[in-house]
Amino acid sequence: MRPNGRKVNERRPMKLTVNINKYAEGSVYIEVGDTKVICTATVDEKVPMFMKGQGKGWITAEYSMLPRATQTRNQRESARGKLSGRTMEIQRLIGRSLRSVVDLHALGERSVTVDCDVIQADGGTRTASITGAFVAMAFAINKLVQKHNLTTFPIKDFLAAVSVGIVGENIVLDLEYEEDSKAKVDMNVVMTGQGQFVEVQGTGEENPFSRQELDRMLELAEQGINEMILQQQEVLGSIALKIRGDETGGQA
Amino acid sequence: MRPNGRKVNERRPMKLTVNINKYAEGSVYIEVGDTKVICTATVDEKVPMFMKGQGKGWITAEYSMLPRATQTRNQRESARGKLSGRTMEIQRLIGRSLRSVVDLHALGERSVTVDCDVIQADGGTRTASITGAFVAMAFAINKLVQKHNLTTFPIKDFLAAVSVGIVGENIVLDLEYEEDSKAKVDMNVVMTGQGQFVEVQGTGEENPFSRQELDRMLELAEQGINEMILQQQEVLGSIALKIRGDETGGQA
Amino acid sequence: MRPNGRKVNERRPMKLTVNINKYAEGSVYIEVGDTKVICTATVDEKVPMFMKGQGKGWITAEYSMLPRATQTRNQRESARGKLSGRTMEIQRLIGRSLRSVVDLHALGERSVTVDCDVIQADGGTRTASITGAFVAMAFAINKLVQKHNLTTFPIKDFLAAVSVGIVGENIVLDLEYEEDSKAKVDMNVVMTGQGQFVEVQGTGEENPFSRQELDRMLELAEQGINEMILQQQEVLGSIALKIRGDETGGQA
Amino acid sequence: MRPNGRKVNERRPMKLTVNINKYAEGSVYIEVGDTKVICTATVDEKVPMFMKGQGKGWITAEYSMLPRATQTRNQRESARGKLSGRTMEIQRLIGRSLRSVVDLHALGERSVTVDCDVIQADGGTRTASITGAFVAMAFAINKLVQKHNLTTFPIKDFLAAVSVGIVGENIVLDLEYEEDSKAKVDMNVVMTGQGQFVEVQGTGEENPFSRQELDRMLELAEQGINEMILQQQEVLGSIALKIRGDETGGQA
Amino acid sequence: MRPNGRKVNERRPMKLTVNINKYAEGSVYIEVGDTKVICTATVDEKVPMFMKGQGKGWITAEYSMLPRATQTRNQRESARGKLSGRTMEIQRLIGRSLRSVVDLHALGERSVTVDCDVIQADGGTRTASITGAFVAMAFAINKLVQKHNLTTFPIKDFLAAVSVGIVGENIVLDLEYEEDSKAKVDMNVVMTGQGQFVEVQGTGEENPFSRQELDRMLELAEQGINEMILQQQEVLGSIALKIRGDETGGQA
Amino acid sequence: MRPNGRKVNERRPMKLTVNINKYAEGSVYIEVGDTKVICTATVDEKVPMFMKGQGKGWITAEYSMLPRATQTRNQRESARGKLSGRTMEIQRLIGRSLRSVVDLHALGERSVTVDCDVIQADGGTRTASITGAFVAMAFAINKLVQKHNLTTFPIKDFLAAVSVGIVGENIVLDLEYEEDSKAKVDMNVVMTGQGQFVEVQGTGEENPFSRQELDRMLELAEQGINEMILQQQEVLGSIALKIRGDETGGQA
Repeated sequence: MRPNGRKVNERRPMKLTVNINKYAEGSVYIEVGDTKVICTATVDEKVPMFMKGQGKGWITAEYSMLPRATQTRNQRESARGKLSGRTMEIQRLIGRSLRSVVDLHALGERSVTVDCDVIQADGGTRTASITGAFVAMAFAINKLVQKHNLTTFPIKDFLAAVSVGIVGENIVLDLEYEEDSKAKVDMNVVMTGQGQFVEVQGTGEENPFSRQELDRMLELAEQGINEMILQQQEVLGSIALKIRGDETGGQA
Repeated sequence: MRPNGRKVNERRPMKLTVNINKYAEGSVYIEVGDTKVICTATVDEKVPMFMKGQGKGWITAEYSMLPRATQTRNQRESARGKLSGRTMEIQRLIGRSLRSVVDLHALGERSVTVDCDVIQADGGTRTASITGAFVAMAFAINKLVQKHNLTTFPIKDFLAAVSVGIVGENIVLDLEYEEDSKAKVDMNVVMTGQGQFVEVQGTGEENPFSRQELDRMLELAEQGINEMILQQQEVLGSIALKIRGDETGGQA
Repeated sequence: MRPNGRKVNERRPMKLTVNINKYAEGSVYIEVGDTKVICTATVDEKVPMFMKGQGKGWITAEYSMLPRATQTRNQRESARGKLSGRTMEIQRLIGRSLRSVVDLHALGERSVTVDCDVIQADGGTRTASITGAFVAMAFAINKLVQKHNLTTFPIKDFLAAVSVGIVGENIVLDLEYEEDSKAKVDMNVVMTGQGQFVEVQGTGEENPFSRQELDRMLELAEQGINEMILQQQEVLGSIALKIRGDETGGQA
Repeated sequence: MRPNGRKVNERRPMKLTVNINKYAEGSVYIEVGDTKVICTATVDEKVPMFMKGQGKGWITAEYSMLPRATQTRNQRESARGKLSGRTMEIQRLIGRSLRSVVDLHALGERSVTVDCDVIQADGGTRTASITGAFVAMAFAINKLVQKHNLTTFPIKDFLAAVSVGIVGENIVLDLEYEEDSKAKVDMNVVMTGQGQFVEVQGTGEENPFSRQELDRMLELAEQGINEMILQQQEVLGSIALKIRGDETGGQA
Repeated sequence: MRPNGRKVNERRPMKLTVNINKYAEGSVYIEVGDTKVICTATVDEKVPMFMKGQGKGWITAEYSMLPRATQTRNQRESARGKLSGRTMEIQRLIGRSLRSVVDLHALGERSVTVDCDVIQADGGTRTASITGAFVAMAFAINKLVQKHNLTTFPIKDFLAAVSVGIVGENIVLDLEYEEDSKAKVDMNVVMTGQGQFVEVQGTGEENPFSRQELDRMLELAEQGINEMILQQQEVLGSIALKIRGDETGGQA
Repeated sequence: MRPNGRKVNERRPMKLTVNINKYAEGSVYIEVGDTKVICTATVDEKVPMFMKGQGKGWITAEYSMLPRATQTRNQRESARGKLSGRTMEIQRLIGRSLRSVVDLHALGERSVTVDCDVIQADGGTRTASITGAFVAMAFAINKLVQKHNLTTFPIKDFLAAVSVGIVGENIVLDLEYEEDSKAKVDMNVVMTGQGQFVEVQGTGEENPFSRQELDRMLELAEQGINEMILQQQEVLGSIALKIRGDETGGQA
């Protein structure tokens, strides 16, 4: 039996509140059950040094947790003087995922930084961050497209992420902390609106897993992500049409 | 003329939302105009090394801003690998202020850490942090008093803070960012419920100020803080009675 | 056409030279084509702080590249004063992978640290590190079993890793640098001797990938890893029997 | 009774020895009782990055204590790898104070860095640093004015600082370490030659203080600072006339 | 009696294997007894900031030990976040020594970085590094001379280094770890092919030493270095002739 | 011709002012020409971790320069966040030198830290530091001997240091900055009162040197150090007798 009586293929309720920051070019407050993340997207009219002169843009992400986002307080990484390996791994993952659905040439020599700050953590903070970051980025890029009158809309597809895993005997969708902490296998999946994989990261530290188990986890993830992308489309409104290419600026 | 037509002695609207974090022993979301801060208080059943064996508790605070709390994005201090002087100065100020109204002996060898994370900054983040942190701390200490059945309520008085300053020709209360950035004199005042000063920090970098100007700023601050403490008392409910000593556990 | 005329399912020649360090409890020099890594395993008769008192051991790994392991010289991480995200991600991956095939209770409160130092890098350094690290760890744990006369041999299964990916139109096994640098999809797979997955990490930053492509990559990886484990068994000699459980100490 | 039989409004003897460093553009050795600080001012013909192109100069300060300036040895901040919050707070205070009496436009795009190194600490190191730093800066700026033949003398007023506080029942001027360590209220005041406040920093961590106590502390501070500025004028000689504007280059 | 029955003036066997890295402009694997070091030389077509515009080149070196190069494992300096004093001292020594035999003007505004990575340490790692680094540098500079068709060969002389010391009653040549750890006096000597001293570093921490002892140590060092330079000349082949000036490009 | 008409074998005037710090167990202000260093010795009734339980004491040193000790201002190492290689090399040298004349067993499990802070630098700061540090340490150890009533005086011999070098055609004693900056060979020599060598560090980066030149430099150094030790004996007074063993507590 899962917490709150959830079925194995049932996601937690997800809520996206957009434009919650008065300064950022795009911003979203994403709640997935008790996991809560603020995503803000910042546009910069230049690219980092290593990208200069290539006529391409850059998308990057940063991830952090407030000290008391978790059951016991965590020391701030600013106080420790360095980022943990976990943080770096997550922010690299978010950045890569976002870039996979953006046409960097269409963006021009500009960069978008998406900050994902976890206000409360109850499992799945990295997948919630990706799902929220995509929406914040979409708002910011839309603003940029309008401001610079770009002819191609640089976002090629939707993007969302979810965790799946094996808890006890069950293969389950969208693990919350209580499940995550005792899962034998933990997998994060990032997919596009067209059902392609962007990232598949499965770990069986406690228990290696079989090909059949892997297949079932991928199925659950695909179902969950499809549902999440529908919610993204709702809050994106007309921007969703541009991503789908139903309007001027799309990739059709 | 002040922004939004405020009078010189008029504060921005302040809102305190309590218990907004499901893990923290005490938590408050404080909004002062467009300045928004999450304050969470964490109780630890031990004190830092330098306080050991003195039979006293300890109160400390940490302060941080989300990267896009401000008009332009700030680099994270965790990425830079160190805290700025400004951050350290502010968190030292918050900690000192909180300790001034707590009977550390009554607390016992326990510590409370209050995290103040600025979600959006529009001037006065340090004073909003103090005002919110006091309330978060009060909830946490109240829980601790109940759990350990302490006979003396360790909080001796209320505590709030506000900024005052000289903008153009006017001496004004509660500066927002637009005013702060052009103020000739900037002063932060922290006071108790009984009208005593805990901290007075006035700076006339752009313009030294006279004794008369100082006196007027202190008056405005006192008025503003009195109003804020009334709001604290409302959200604290029965805890306010314990602080006032109207109930068992008070300092009367 | 692949470099050196390799077929899409053909690995580079792999060579394992054991006991190449006179101090380490276990050591291997692994060459996979032009990728060359020194793996040394160090036994410590205690566990890190966070593992104390649990009656369990710990396995960890560190990864580094010599500055001129690569075509252009890389600055040392010691000189930069911190580990890169990539390094942390890789050493976390190696450590997790090794732990997945070790019975930490059978190990007792001891730890094994495996250092993977890349002497020359030509693609696939993280997978070569895992494959070599397993062998170095096996020698070290065997020594430890003999010294302490442990009744259960703590290694439960073999472990090896390989990369697969999509280069141009081809799905290929064991990418070298020239291929890696232009791959659309890059996947690292870690598997046990019994054909279970320990880690699956696929990334389509340049190009999301379909379920069919994922399936084909997993097949190639499985074939490659099976071949590598046969080579591990050869150099492990009688230790291989203990891992298989054909002898006292095995998990049978 | 105060140490050495001092009266409540009696400062410790202060001595200013000028030009004690053969390389620095300005230098002063200030002794306030047993508190001893070397202040050296360095002129640089450029400004920091963030000030470039504004046609204005910059004044900054650094503060440090020798490890054995204090009763027990303090670890060096260079060995710890970072500045403490206290150090940063003090050097920001010194810098702000100095800038308040300098016409940065008259200085041109040049900067002055004043280093305050505490050789021996017996209370009041930050106020002694400000008082000494002002004199070192004045010598350096005078040299700069002569070298570049500036028409406006950039220093607009004198500047000195002193501590006041409440020790036991007494409100006292210029606390030495023995008093400082048991003071209930501690206040640092920085004032100009014309009796304006530049910084007022009062802290009642141990004991909040009343408006009457604040008023009395400010009076004592004003008296003490007036006396100190007279001593500065003596050692500054003809430079004092330029600051007062009695000569070409003054602010009259 | 020395370990392995060596005579007091007998060096350990030394072996130089050249071109062991497929990317580096010059590379050598040096073995001195059980001390093993990989030296790679990297050419960069520019000089560090502080050398710019002087028409001269720069030679620098970095030194590091693999964690298990030693009997017990050492923590990585990258993990500790800083270089130890020992490491910095050694890499400064290697760099200075190499520069002493190079005509930096003849090199032009280019730099050579030699990395010395100790694979296994059994005493004398810094002297083995210098001896190996010289050969790696010579290969790299030779390549650079050919590529740019330089008319003067920038290397003016050979360079090698050895340790001498007092162990028990004996003054001995080329100390291995067992001797080094109990030596009363330890001296490292760097000399040129023409018998001039480049560095003499003698330390009698456990026991100050007399002038006669110093003289005898210098004699042994000179003998040892002469032998080592013969071995360098063998592996350098025709490059040795250019250094000697027997050919176009030499310093004759 | 040397600056100030000094002869090649003529030292700069040296002045030792003792007990200049009211807190330190021993303190000396040493002036060698325009090079000025404050040396303070701190006694600690325990040893560092790595020395625990050996029944021996420990002597260590730290070295730093004030930012404006030099002609142009140097950035503080505390601000840079790390010690330079030069600083570490020098403080290791001072520590080793001091330990060579102390009987660490006689000291007991105590440590002495000598801080050498360069107030003004005009060449020879490391040798002045050693010469001054020895005197500060002697005062501190004498106090410790008296306090604990030790039967053996732990200092076995005197210790001083000087630089020698080759400037133009001349081999000279005690180089000041003007000479140092253009010296071809630079050597620092540390010797005991009985004429034994503790450290010999000669560097011919610009120009390798011959055995004859080395011999002449050592002669000059010996002469200079003998003169300096006479001055040390004067200021040490009766402590000098204890070091010489003419009194109870000596090593005779």
